[in-house]
Amino acid sequence: MHEEAPRSLRRVLPTASLFLKRNPPVGARPGTLAIPKGALRPQIHVMSFDAERIKESDVEDVQEIRKLLSTGAVTWVDVRGLGDEKLLRELGELFAIHPLALADVVNVPQRPKTESYEGQQLFICSTLNLDANGDLKSEQFSVFIGKGYLLTFQEDYEDGLDPVRKRLRDNVGSLRTSGVDYLAYAIIDTVVDGYYPVLEAFADELEVLEERVMRRPRPELLVRVHEVKRTLMLVRRAVWPLRDALSTLIRDPVPALTDSARLYLRDTYDHCIQVSEMAESYRELVSELTNTYMSVISNRTNDVMRLLTVVTTIFIPLTFIVGVYGMNFDNMPELKTKNGYFITLGVMVALGAGMLVYFRVRGWLGDPDDPGEPGDEEK
Amino acid sequence: MHEEAPRSLRRVLPTASLFLKRNPPVGARPGTLAIPKGALRPQIHVMSFDAERIKESDVEDVQEIRKLLSTGAVTWVDVRGLGDEKLLRELGELFAIHPLALADVVNVPQRPKTESYEGQQLFICSTLNLDANGDLKSEQFSVFIGKGYLLTFQEDYEDGLDPVRKRLRDNVGSLRTSGVDYLAYAIIDTVVDGYYPVLEAFADELEVLEERVMRRPRPELLVRVHEVKRTLMLVRRAVWPLRDALSTLIRDPVPALTDSARLYLRDTYDHCIQVSEMAESYRELVSELTNTYMSVISNRTNDVMRLLTVVTTIFIPLTFIVGVYGMNFDNMPELKTKNGYFITLGVMVALGAGMLVYFRVRGWLGDPDDPGEPGDEEK
Amino acid sequence: MHEEAPRSLRRVLPTASLFLKRNPPVGARPGTLAIPKGALRPQIHVMSFDAERIKESDVEDVQEIRKLLSTGAVTWVDVRGLGDEKLLRELGELFAIHPLALADVVNVPQRPKTESYEGQQLFICSTLNLDANGDLKSEQFSVFIGKGYLLTFQEDYEDGLDPVRKRLRDNVGSLRTSGVDYLAYAIIDTVVDGYYPVLEAFADELEVLEERVMRRPRPELLVRVHEVKRTLMLVRRAVWPLRDALSTLIRDPVPALTDSARLYLRDTYDHCIQVSEMAESYRELVSELTNTYMSVISNRTNDVMRLLTVVTTIFIPLTFIVGVYGMNFDNMPELKTKNGYFITLGVMVALGAGMLVYFRVRGWLGDPDDPGEPGDEEK
Amino acid sequence: MHEEAPRSLRRVLPTASLFLKRNPPVGARPGTLAIPKGALRPQIHVMSFDAERIKESDVEDVQEIRKLLSTGAVTWVDVRGLGDEKLLRELGELFAIHPLALADVVNVPQRPKTESYEGQQLFICSTLNLDANGDLKSEQFSVFIGKGYLLTFQEDYEDGLDPVRKRLRDNVGSLRTSGVDYLAYAIIDTVVDGYYPVLEAFADELEVLEERVMRRPRPELLVRVHEVKRTLMLVRRAVWPLRDALSTLIRDPVPALTDSARLYLRDTYDHCIQVSEMAESYRELVSELTNTYMSVISNRTNDVMRLLTVVTTIFIPLTFIVGVYGMNFDNMPELKTKNGYFITLGVMVALGAGMLVYFRVRGWLGDPDDPGEPGDEEK
Amino acid sequence: MHEEAPRSLRRVLPTASLFLKRNPPVGARPGTLAIPKGALRPQIHVMSFDAERIKESDVEDVQEIRKLLSTGAVTWVDVRGLGDEKLLRELGELFAIHPLALADVVNVPQRPKTESYEGQQLFICSTLNLDANGDLKSEQFSVFIGKGYLLTFQEDYEDGLDPVRKRLRDNVGSLRTSGVDYLAYAIIDTVVDGYYPVLEAFADELEVLEERVMRRPRPELLVRVHEVKRTLMLVRRAVWPLRDALSTLIRDPVPALTDSARLYLRDTYDHCIQVSEMAESYRELVSELTNTYMSVISNRTNDVMRLLTVVTTIFIPLTFIVGVYGMNFDNMPELKTKNGYFITLGVMVALGAGMLVYFRVRGWLGDPDDPGEPGDEEK
Repeated sequence: MHEEAPRSLRRVLPTASLFLKRNPPVGARPGTLAIPKGALRPQIHVMSFDAERIKESDVEDVQEIRKLLSTGAVTWVDVRGLGDEKLLRELGELFAIHPLALADVVNVPQRPKTESYEGQQLFICSTLNLDANGDLKSEQFSVFIGKGYLLTFQEDYEDGLDPVRKRLRDNVGSLRTSGVDYLAYAIIDTVVDGYYPVLEAFADELEVLEERVMRRPRPELLVRVHEVKRTLMLVRRAVWPLRDALSTLIRDPVPALTDSARLYLRDTYDHCIQVSEMAESYRELVSELTNTYMSVISNRTNDVMRLLTVVTTIFIPLTFIVGVYGMNFDNMPELKTKNGYFITLGVMVALGAGMLVYFRVRGWLGDPDDPGEPGDEEK
Repeated sequence: MHEEAPRSLRRVLPTASLFLKRNPPVGARPGTLAIPKGALRPQIHVMSFDAERIKESDVEDVQEIRKLLSTGAVTWVDVRGLGDEKLLRELGELFAIHPLALADVVNVPQRPKTESYEGQQLFICSTLNLDANGDLKSEQFSVFIGKGYLLTFQEDYEDGLDPVRKRLRDNVGSLRTSGVDYLAYAIIDTVVDGYYPVLEAFADELEVLEERVMRRPRPELLVRVHEVKRTLMLVRRAVWPLRDALSTLIRDPVPALTDSARLYLRDTYDHCIQVSEMAESYRELVSELTNTYMSVISNRTNDVMRLLTVVTTIFIPLTFIVGVYGMNFDNMPELKTKNGYFITLGVMVALGAGMLVYFRVRGWLGDPDDPGEPGDEEK
Repeated sequence: MHEEAPRSLRRVLPTASLFLKRNPPVGARPGTLAIPKGALRPQIHVMSFDAERIKESDVEDVQEIRKLLSTGAVTWVDVRGLGDEKLLRELGELFAIHPLALADVVNVPQRPKTESYEGQQLFICSTLNLDANGDLKSEQFSVFIGKGYLLTFQEDYEDGLDPVRKRLRDNVGSLRTSGVDYLAYAIIDTVVDGYYPVLEAFADELEVLEERVMRRPRPELLVRVHEVKRTLMLVRRAVWPLRDALSTLIRDPVPALTDSARLYLRDTYDHCIQVSEMAESYRELVSELTNTYMSVISNRTNDVMRLLTVVTTIFIPLTFIVGVYGMNFDNMPELKTKNGYFITLGVMVALGAGMLVYFRVRGWLGDPDDPGEPGDEEK
Repeated sequence: MHEEAPRSLRRVLPTASLFLKRNPPVGARPGTLAIPKGALRPQIHVMSFDAERIKESDVEDVQEIRKLLSTGAVTWVDVRGLGDEKLLRELGELFAIHPLALADVVNVPQRPKTESYEGQQLFICSTLNLDANGDLKSEQFSVFIGKGYLLTFQEDYEDGLDPVRKRLRDNVGSLRTSGVDYLAYAIIDTVVDGYYPVLEAFADELEVLEERVMRRPRPELLVRVHEVKRTLMLVRRAVWPLRDALSTLIRDPVPALTDSARLYLRDTYDHCIQVSEMAESYRELVSELTNTYMSVISNRTNDVMRLLTVVTTIFIPLTFIVGVYGMNFDNMPELKTKNGYFITLGVMVALGAGMLVYFRVRGWLGDPDDPGEPGDEEK
Repeated sequence: MHEEAPRSLRRVLPTASLFLKRNPPVGARPGTLAIPKGALRPQIHVMSFDAERIKESDVEDVQEIRKLLSTGAVTWVDVRGLGDEKLLRELGELFAIHPLALADVVNVPQRPKTESYEGQQLFICSTLNLDANGDLKSEQFSVFIGKGYLLTFQEDYEDGLDPVRKRLRDNVGSLRTSGVDYLAYAIIDTVVDGYYPVLEAFADELEVLEERVMRRPRPELLVRVHEVKRTLMLVRRAVWPLRDALSTLIRDPVPALTDSARLYLRDTYDHCIQVSEMAESYRELVSELTNTYMSVISNRTNDVMRLLTVVTTIFIPLTFIVGVYGMNFDNMPELKTKNGYFITLGVMVALGAGMLVYFRVRGWLGDPDDPGEPGDEEK
């Protein structure tokens, strides 16, 4: 989601990574918060602003937020890390979050979706990112759009929202004057924009794979092709439900959004469709790669067979002939003739040459890598 | 549906298991109860509770239930085993169940569905379970949601609803205070949660299969791949109509459900979609496995062919040459020369070496398992 | 449609059987009745009943029916055989059947469908049956639901409706008291139930085919696989439009049906969906069979190649060596040495053994049917 | 469209034939009439009739039509050939045809469709025909349904509407008394009926192809399979949009049609669905043919390989043995023994026989065309 | 888009070309104009006309346009080149364009779409073109339909709209009298017509590829097949959303369009559907090409194998026989007989001939390119 050169897709996730764990134990009561092991301690960053002023602070205590909420026209409470149930419950209480909504935020991963609660709109999507190792990382990103406040939850400390923060601080454009819903749009748009570098990495990867499959088809490449296919499944899982969620935001009478914000979200929706269409194109290309692999292998087998057949077909009859005159019968008149040996050699040369000519006429000879005779290209 | 480590998928069902028998004989009058052979004798467990009190009892006589119904605000009548037509008919009478609804409950298996009857909502779904042998077991689970009572029917004695019962007994959360529909949600949610360990077992199985297909493709693996595909069909048959049934419960004006319960069922619906998407992903992975199998076999055939061709192409011409000098012609001048033998040997070594060099240049030599020259990986 | 053990699927229909002839000559005026050649002479069986009485009679003259119509509350006129245009037209007149409706009944086969005419509902579906030879037989079954009468048309004398007739005669259940629409339901339900034994025969056939393809893949099996696929197309052609027709009966405001009959037809609709889902599963299994066939063949080719390569690669170099010492050069010092022969033998044994060891290490030896080393299965 | 025996499908169209030219030059103003080269000079045939009288005439001058229009209750103006722009424009003026509608009629081919213009309904469909050479011919057929007149346009002089004309002349059925819309139905129905013989030709062709692919798979057959597939694409292009057009006529409030005509068109719509379902079935069968081709080839390769392997594996070791005793070492004790030769022969016979037995046990011997041992079929 | 002979498809774009860059940097504020590098300096051409007069001028300064707007009834402002942000913003101000709409115009490529803004309708589509090198070029074409003016934006100087300009200048048809929306139709129709030559080039290419795959299947052809597939993806990306956009224009109550223009756009919509159906046909044909490739290769491998097997199977046993009589045993009675040699030769000839006959009977001999015996074609 940064503006650096897109990282390449180095390693991809195994089959198991496609599995979505049901986080709270089966049969747990609804609203149970199942803090994942290794979840980070929440860091809360609050930006409160109106057209003239902006105030930023890192808060430790949920009660501090209460005061900040009345500071500016709009307050953006950004929670990074989900590792403290008590703090999360306090936040839930402060913002009057429905227990199921809070559970959806904490019990990652959920399908991207949007749901209306009284006085709030919850929007859940996934970020897609290539980390420094080229691994695809997908994290849940949740936004509550309320009256005068925006509450975002992220799994990790690092995010791609710094451009939005900078625009807020620098007071660029209408971000400081346009209300909570426009800020929500700016944030969601930035998340969706983060999908582009990931897909670009796929395009690069596919081009390399295609070239290798044509040049040197090995089972190792198939493993790689499957990994790419599986990673594309992950991308699809993030993007397709997001389309639906955005379309709901745009079409349904969601009270938290003004018509103007809806117009802007239509733009984000267009990007989301572009991304999903690209992902589908890549899926098709990957499917084709397996076919290509098979075709190339078949072709190579055919080339190998042809060489084997030419060599065998020429030499086996000749070897038979020399075998005949290697027999030890007492009465073999040819053996006594003066030029029998030379005649035999001559016959064999003629036979071999004849077969060579036959094979050349049939087109079985010539370098198998040669795309064809020149005349072939005339048409 | 227990919280233990998920069992692995050991044996799967044959083609015939995909066949759904029409249980009552063809042409039987509607409402006929076709008790399956080997159906268990029903055990009836009744839990009657309100916020303060909870009363549990195992009843033998249907008439006892009548008394219990007025004990608490909510009464959950749980019938396990479908092997007693008389008892089932008595229950049908007691709760005023429509004959077709009762037949749907007894004549298993039905497609998951929900239907409205006067004063009652019937919800039918399937449990998915791995038994101790790793066999996939699918049983029908039926719920009648009525006024002040919940009536559940299960085929087997063992179920995965103990967590719900424990929450009732311990009075955890709002289960005791939230009415029949919330209890119905809690039960259906627990059934759906039981799908997760099954799918996890599929993920494990697929990973093992993938690794084996790459390493040692044998027809036995294909049999296994087909079994997995068939078992996934069973899963799909349970999950897809369940999505529709849940969506009907959420969207349609079902009188038995309050808006609050609908909100919770939306959560179950989300899980159901997650499960069905996972099942679809696994289907795709399984389809790919067959392709991979073919590709790996093709590759191996190509490797074998290459070795055969190299060996044959080198030695057949040499064998011809030694055959020539094994002929018994009287007049073969080369045989008389002093160094003819050594010159011939030299020529043959040169020929063989030349062909080896040619094959190496063509890339046909080198260990076929070698992924390629180091320079190959630079790109 | 009988309750006997389901017959097996012995012979299936050729491609041409998928073709639906347009029965009346092209350009014929609408309503033309094209009595198929070999159509049976119609037999008319009338059952007239109310709760107390039931009267059955075989009638020859259409005018007799008129009298019978007023005998009971409900009259079921069952016409078997379509081979008498005059009689059919008289029936059309008696029951005021629209010419197009009558043509749909007579010009078999039509797509299953339901259509509303004034005072009548026409419902057309197909029976599926395995005859004594295991051939799939599909015949058209048409029902007119009118006021106080039910008019059914069948192509053949034998049908599967005897259970319904027996229930009428024995006055079992509410069939005698529930009106025309309930009788229509009972009849349609019996036709749909008749699909189950046919699908069961498919399941059996598929299991046999699968086992054979794995064990002994021969082109003859492919022919069989195609036949099964084609027969499944016939099943699909019967079942899919029937789903739509039933759904129309259930959802649309069809005046001929009461709400109660609609409730029962919902049950038939469920069976119809079950049948169509099973048919789809079988189609998938059949598609997979072709893939399996290819995989098994590929595997066998690979096994054969491996043996060929091992034998050739071991003996061709050895044959070359013995060829060398079979040459007749005068000056071949090795031939004079005392132990040359034995040394040569030793070298050849060592070479052969070395190559055997190499092939074993590469895993090319061992019985090709052996699924792998024991250690292989540990994982 | 004639009632003769259906012609067989002799030659099919190349890829280019799938291309629909945009007839008027790119950028031409809308309504431009692009008379195709070689278009026939229009012949105008007018039938004017009511219940009592019918008057037929071939007219040369458009103005004659004006008089005929008032002759009968219904006037059918049939224009065959589109090769005279002036005449077509005059017709357009006479019947007040919208310029775009006229362009749709002339600039063939258009997608089948129906469009409402003021006082007129335009219906465009395609005829499908096998000409005397077995070529598939598809021509555009356009009908304007107006008040008291029907205006049809065809590309060619020959058509399949003679049965309709005959019914008009003979005053059979209600064609003369039922209005313009019923006549339109009769004509469209005749066009759709003309699809049946074409599909029958496909069924025949597929059966021949299937049999040949199994018996003698050659690349020439693949070419033919592709041609059939391509021709089916042409059929689909004619039939699918026609379904939509008919469904529009039936469902939408088209003023030109009475309810009674709609009832009859529902029948045509049913035929259209039948045809499109058959075409889809054939597409599936064609797709399968390619798979079968591959399977049969694989199987043959396997059979050939097996023979090669058996022969090679038996004789190569034997040839090695005889090579050993063909060596010329001075000291080879076996050569001196009295029975060495016979013992060697015996050993070789035993070796060969042993391998034969081994191969037979493995099932590699026996006629490769033999479907299996008798016991194999018992199951 | 010109009327010349369609150029052939010479080079197609690599995988990366399927990637749509997100033009403004991620996180940029909405409405940012990201002028692409190398964008051309805008040229503005204004045509202002009514039925009597037409005035054309190339303007440099945006303010000049303001004056021209009132000259005629309709003013068409055509901007070619997007390389001047200041000028574009001035245009945006002059025509009161929404910042997001302006960004959609400049930040190419967008998905084809139409959006309503106050007083304006934005329509975005893509042109498809083969340049002089046979490369597929796709450029964005944007139209604002306002009150009395039409504002078009193109990426490049060259366009295919000259026929429209000519029709305006020559006052052909009703273009000068029919308002802004009819002009918009004329322009969009011309863009869509420009797709036809491109698809024709595809048809030509496919025919060449098909012929080559059958005659000389080489991996190079596969590369080409993939390129074609990928280029078709580009076409689909242009055409499918355009269908939706046109359908929106036709169906939705877009105030900028009169009913008459809608009628004409329905014609363009029909063309668009034709184009998309052709593109789908070509996709199917391309998919089939890969299958054909595989089949042809398999067939060739089979032919090669057959020759190898015939030669080997005939000569290996013969070589064994001559090897036997080449052995040097002292006691080999046959060697002493007078006619042993000739008998052996005779036996070998008989053996070889016998096997030849066997292979011919099995149909393995004869030219493998021969489609079969003459009798084969009789059926």
